[in-house]
Amino acid sequence: MGEQRAAEDAAKTPRTERGRKTLRKLLDASATEFGERGFHEASVSSITRRAGVALGTFYTYFDSKDALFRALVKDMSGNVMASARAAMRDDMSALEIEQAALTAFLAFAGEHKEVYRIIDEAEFVDPESYRGHYQTIAARIRSRLEAGAAAGELREDLGEIEAWAIMGMNVFAGLRYAVWREAGDAAPEAVARTINRLLAEGIGSKEA
Amino acid sequence: MGEQRAAEDAAKTPRTERGRKTLRKLLDASATEFGERGFHEASVSSITRRAGVALGTFYTYFDSKDALFRALVKDMSGNVMASARAAMRDDMSALEIEQAALTAFLAFAGEHKEVYRIIDEAEFVDPESYRGHYQTIAARIRSRLEAGAAAGELREDLGEIEAWAIMGMNVFAGLRYAVWREAGDAAPEAVARTINRLLAEGIGSKEA
Repeated sequence: MGEQRAAEDAAKTPRTERGRKTLRKLLDASATEFGERGFHEASVSSITRRAGVALGTFYTYFDSKDALFRALVKDMSGNVMASARAAMRDDMSALEIEQAALTAFLAFAGEHKEVYRIIDEAEFVDPESYRGHYQTIAARIRSRLEAGAAAGELREDLGEIEAWAIMGMNVFAGLRYAVWREAGDAAPEAVARTINRLLAEGIGSKEA
Repeated sequence: MGEQRAAEDAAKTPRTERGRKTLRKLLDASATEFGERGFHEASVSSITRRAGVALGTFYTYFDSKDALFRALVKDMSGNVMASARAAMRDDMSALEIEQAALTAFLAFAGEHKEVYRIIDEAEFVDPESYRGHYQTIAARIRSRLEAGAAAGELREDLGEIEAWAIMGMNVFAGLRYAVWREAGDAAPEAVARTINRLLAEGIGSKEA
């Protein structure tokens, strides 16, 4: 990967509704294929078979397996953020927004367990996408923290460090309670509530 | 990997001081090799060359590249925890202990940037080691939180969820401020202090 990057940067954008549906099928099939077999074992022919799309058609959308993987990471990144955004309402406080975003993320990760394997494999297959994924999410969290501070609900000194810390909490909550979920674990809502309490008041004893 | 697991579970323990030094050389050389080239591209002959050890000698310590990788993950996991432990003192409060542990981890990750790549690659090469690494660290954090609660310094309701959240904060702080460190970033001590404040008092505005 590298030299052809700009040319391959995303899927060739389809102009018709039918084209958009085919692209969606290819992305969904590739999520299953990359999630189950990993990047190196995955094959374009197996992905087109899963998608029910002719092999030749694939190449009208993507130049290579690498280009598809890159588009998939971008797509998943967008879906992770869209699922969090869809859970937020205008009347929520800044802390309620964080809780809703985490609850939505845990649900998303529970339904799309392959998301961790695919994003994590990007560290090796496409480091730029990997880094871009986390930078984009951290920037999103940071802007929420700044909005909360502007509304007088959050501390005014919050910044990039807290954004990365919150992202890390959320990622590991998803790893443990969605991907590695065990019988008897707290429900996703309870996990998000517990983490939100940490954000609201910290871990110090009230008497101390 | 798998069937021979029990037999290969760790390096064959050397009985002499010289043997322990050779084992150390092999582990250190493998950290560089796996960190630079990744598991699949790494070779035993290149590792023994880096270590200045004969190829035949390698096999008196490890049965395979897989066994070496597994031993390395375990070794790094141990070193991460040892570096945190070495920074703690008996007279520290529970929150001071968390700050010292994170400061030490950021220093460790800054000096051993390959640790992320190697632990992360274990997700694909040796999933059991990957999971074991995080489970062990989360259990360690959880027992610190319980000790802090018993001392009356931390909330009494803290448990596994907060332990995973704190681990996630620390891992992502290391990713951003040690591995991906940029000119002008806050010093590791300042990063650890900022995250410790989040733990101490949360992110809510004091006036709210």
